[in-house]
Amino acid sequence: MSDNARWARRRLLTGGGLAAGAALAGAGLLSTRQEQPPTAAAVSQAAVGEATVDFHGTHQAGVVTPPQAHAVLLALDLRRGVDRQGLARMMRLLTDDAARLTQGRAALADTEPELAARPARLTVTFGFGPDLFDKLDLVHAPVKQLPAFSIDRMQPQWCGGDLLVQICSDDPVTVTHTQRMLVKDARAFTTVRWLQRGFRRAAGADPAAMTQRNLLGQVDGTIQPPEDTHDRTVWINSGPGWLHGGTTVVVRRIRAELETWDAVDRGGKELTIGRRLDTGAPLTGGAEHDPADYAATDSLGLPVISAFAHIRRAHVADPARRILRRPYNYDDGLAADGTPDAGLVFAAYQADIDTQFLPIQQALAESDLLNEWTTPIGSAVFVIPPGCQLGGFVGQTLLDPT
Amino acid sequence: MSDNARWARRRLLTGGGLAAGAALAGAGLLSTRQEQPPTAAAVSQAAVGEATVDFHGTHQAGVVTPPQAHAVLLALDLRRGVDRQGLARMMRLLTDDAARLTQGRAALADTEPELAARPARLTVTFGFGPDLFDKLDLVHAPVKQLPAFSIDRMQPQWCGGDLLVQICSDDPVTVTHTQRMLVKDARAFTTVRWLQRGFRRAAGADPAAMTQRNLLGQVDGTIQPPEDTHDRTVWINSGPGWLHGGTTVVVRRIRAELETWDAVDRGGKELTIGRRLDTGAPLTGGAEHDPADYAATDSLGLPVISAFAHIRRAHVADPARRILRRPYNYDDGLAADGTPDAGLVFAAYQADIDTQFLPIQQALAESDLLNEWTTPIGSAVFVIPPGCQLGGFVGQTLLDPT
Repeated sequence: MSDNARWARRRLLTGGGLAAGAALAGAGLLSTRQEQPPTAAAVSQAAVGEATVDFHGTHQAGVVTPPQAHAVLLALDLRRGVDRQGLARMMRLLTDDAARLTQGRAALADTEPELAARPARLTVTFGFGPDLFDKLDLVHAPVKQLPAFSIDRMQPQWCGGDLLVQICSDDPVTVTHTQRMLVKDARAFTTVRWLQRGFRRAAGADPAAMTQRNLLGQVDGTIQPPEDTHDRTVWINSGPGWLHGGTTVVVRRIRAELETWDAVDRGGKELTIGRRLDTGAPLTGGAEHDPADYAATDSLGLPVISAFAHIRRAHVADPARRILRRPYNYDDGLAADGTPDAGLVFAAYQADIDTQFLPIQQALAESDLLNEWTTPIGSAVFVIPPGCQLGGFVGQTLLDPT
Repeated sequence: MSDNARWARRRLLTGGGLAAGAALAGAGLLSTRQEQPPTAAAVSQAAVGEATVDFHGTHQAGVVTPPQAHAVLLALDLRRGVDRQGLARMMRLLTDDAARLTQGRAALADTEPELAARPARLTVTFGFGPDLFDKLDLVHAPVKQLPAFSIDRMQPQWCGGDLLVQICSDDPVTVTHTQRMLVKDARAFTTVRWLQRGFRRAAGADPAAMTQRNLLGQVDGTIQPPEDTHDRTVWINSGPGWLHGGTTVVVRRIRAELETWDAVDRGGKELTIGRRLDTGAPLTGGAEHDPADYAATDSLGLPVISAFAHIRRAHVADPARRILRRPYNYDDGLAADGTPDAGLVFAAYQADIDTQFLPIQQALAESDLLNEWTTPIGSAVFVIPPGCQLGGFVGQTLLDPT
């Protein structure tokens, strides 16, 4: 660490608490003086590597941001003895790291600053799990873990967590470096509960498709809340003031049963989903983003889209009740006999879990045909606090309101 | 599978053995008639996704191919009872899969053909391990496992293997899909021994740099055999005729001891490596690709590049003795205390392991300063047979010479 960086770090930490405003005005000043990209000579015109997403703002980035190619979702548990002030200190540190790294600048304690030079649309998003509120005797937790569903086969190692750190970038080296930097600053306060790494098509590999294909081969994530509804579908704008501009996320780890899925023919797969596999269009016709006609019947009078098709079960008539889906594929290797350990890290964002996520999940759990080939093995929920401005930190409205 | 595809697959299999030539002339014919991209409508101008590397040729692809962003190295063991003809059948199947998938066409038994539409420079490279030759009573194995080195801390789950399948692409979904297709055709003949997934900078993220940075932050892979020496440094052109045009690969899994590496200051790290961290230039000056001056001394008369620096230990005076390095980073998560399980999947290609790889490895094992922060935990060697032409299959010169 350079002397300047050490100084900036000390200033950041000692500036905590009441002096936050003043200290971070200082940090703002620093950002112009000290945070030159470490390898200015190596800077090229690479669009993928140099693209940045703003860190500061009303909302945290990484939620309505078009999904990057790579993601790590990291759940942390608070160490015993860490109190509200301790957590505030950690969030101040992590916020500063994230604010720098997302803009392609080294973190203050960065030991490999050259690895920070390609943000590739890096976002870092923080969340608070329900247990955290009890442990720190904070306000009543605004979220709780999901109830058990009959389809669940939960594995404890993929469930729960006091804190969420979601790291997304179009570059996998950047994801790993960011993870390393954040974990080093978090480890005095937390232990690692779980880590899920996921991927989608590479940046530029399929620019025409805004929707990813999952490993079952299906177009996945077509129906989303319209952008002009985000202020009520995604972002919280009622209830406690500290949460305004925040959201909630449900993280489900869903194993894909590829072995048995492979035995189903294309007709069977399309019936299960309710969409064509090639174009992603509803079976009632049109293109991927055309609405499905749930009333349509075939020549025998049977519904074209089965009563148990995935898209009918997941359908919500009111677009204001939709959830924002941001799924990533995972592939964690093969058993000796070649059976894959693969599936979906399914992250869904919504203003209100009870009125948006749960009714959909309930309808799917009851009778979605796709349940035959997908198994939820992990589940966690987090509040995503609002974003912060330069000088503030994520979680400040909860932990250190001024 | 469509009827056409089923027919083509049956023809492929029944055409094995002596009828190979005729059957595969048939396959060549098929390739123009049946292998339309499955989703022609979805084809866009995406440079990353649509780029292809030729599969057929004198040499296998994926060796001197500029490294793609993502890789899976998969070691397979032959099932008991599989004989030489069985292995030939499997190689015929896998070769056909690879020939199609690398060109963005679905494999014959492809159940998710849409996932095949973005090859993103996909290459599939096959290798044969030393035990395979004994098990099948083939010719004398031209390679053997490396001797033990004092720095090794081998974990059996990362060592050995009868067969290697190396899958590389700039798109991570394509890597997973290709892996799935190949494993399904291989599983009747083999079991999975190990699988190592690795990554480098995303395609387009750092186009100015041909050399990757590993997770230690160092520029890694600067010195390579000059391209005009590949015919003797990389490709085998003497000894048994079946191997001409082939090569050998050593795969080492090298854990990075990031916790202790972090405690070293930049001066110490640069001294250890013998290069500047920012530019990758030798400590004796110039740019990344300039030669190091191993005779240079400082004002105290001490060598600028330490006698124990990594680049001095790895240096070979004769460029014809160099090895082709194709390293990938791995990041397999975090322990509860935040310690990363990360490092390098180090793949090195050379015409001759004994005269190229081993002297370098021996010199490094003896006294490379970097050994303090890197630990070899896996090791395997494979012969990479020559490439094949349309109608042939990889391994044919060994398994089914005509």
